[in-house]
Amino acid sequence: MERRFDEELMQLKNRLLTMAGLAEQSVGKAIRALVDRDAAMAEKVIQEDALINQAEMEIEKNCLDLLARYQPEARDLRFIAMVFKIVNDLERVGDQAVNVSERTLDLLKEPLLKPLIDIPKMAELAQRMLKDALDAFVHQNADLAREVCRRDQEVDHLNDEVYHELLVFMTQDPRTITRAMDLILIGRHLERVADHATNIAEDVYYLVRGISMKHHIAGS
Amino acid sequence: MERRFDEELMQLKNRLLTMAGLAEQSVGKAIRALVDRDAAMAEKVIQEDALINQAEMEIEKNCLDLLARYQPEARDLRFIAMVFKIVNDLERVGDQAVNVSERTLDLLKEPLLKPLIDIPKMAELAQRMLKDALDAFVHQNADLAREVCRRDQEVDHLNDEVYHELLVFMTQDPRTITRAMDLILIGRHLERVADHATNIAEDVYYLVRGISMKHHIAGS
Repeated sequence: MERRFDEELMQLKNRLLTMAGLAEQSVGKAIRALVDRDAAMAEKVIQEDALINQAEMEIEKNCLDLLARYQPEARDLRFIAMVFKIVNDLERVGDQAVNVSERTLDLLKEPLLKPLIDIPKMAELAQRMLKDALDAFVHQNADLAREVCRRDQEVDHLNDEVYHELLVFMTQDPRTITRAMDLILIGRHLERVADHATNIAEDVYYLVRGISMKHHIAGS
Repeated sequence: MERRFDEELMQLKNRLLTMAGLAEQSVGKAIRALVDRDAAMAEKVIQEDALINQAEMEIEKNCLDLLARYQPEARDLRFIAMVFKIVNDLERVGDQAVNVSERTLDLLKEPLLKPLIDIPKMAELAQRMLKDALDAFVHQNADLAREVCRRDQEVDHLNDEVYHELLVFMTQDPRTITRAMDLILIGRHLERVADHATNIAEDVYYLVRGISMKHHIAGS
């Protein structure tokens, strides 16, 4: 019984990691579609979000099923509750990739406004944060979790830069307004991806250390 | 034992409703601060978000504690899992109210751009959706849950109108750009509040009917 349960927990973890991979890739593809001006790829991200949604529902069901069948205690219970929370964040990461893709399809109606530098950099950071937050979870690594949270400020900073740079475009030439707006929104969607990674990392920290880093990380 | 558990479930529900009230009020106050150009009120919303965050952590802990002590079955288990998810949405509603307040503080540095009509209307709709989503949960009312999800489109529609109206301002007079941007972002934050209400309502529907409305509501 015990061993069977451990196997099922392992399966749950693998399902979670598969879903995390999908979510992370969807962000990667969404940004590649933007940079390469590839409408087909953007459409693909939008379509494939259904897989992420499906994974969320299956994993949630899996969690409830494990709780009902094994009635796990303290540590395992918190692990399962954590998975239950993480899939929620991952599902929303998928939604952000969809949002980016929708903005991209909008942007493709007009010529390129400017070469993209900070936005791909933000995407890379956010993807990395997501990956590391999941690694921190799998290896119960509180230091890595804290490190992920710190990096959130870098993404926020880049996002501010993106915003102010594009504001200048808009102010100088009204013809750039719709495109600049789309790019500003894309910056915000990526910032949200980093926020989800941060949520996960905060929860991992709490799970491992038993004290919360959440809601007062800003000052660190 | 049974009766004790029922009492504790009732307490959990009440805590959830208290937290929902806080989240809903924070949106209301944030919009009042915007309409009345009241910086002190905006600051208050930002400060009081700590209470919502605190409530989230306490309720999560409460859920895990109930699972560990009573090892509830099917129906009660799903109820607790649902509370666990809802508090997450409510916490993010609080974050959106903070975002609105930050934009408001930014807006107060400049004169009023235009009288606000659609944004307060969006806020009212979103608050109502939140309230009804919680009512649907408490009374296990799938019809009301479905109704909440339908209303999400209304909010999206208003948000599109806000966006396009402000785009015209920006295009015609570059001096309005920063203010218009702030208002566009506020529109998006309110749209996100409605999305959280929709998430809750989708989960309620699933809980009551056992089939998912989620991820393919758009066509209904």
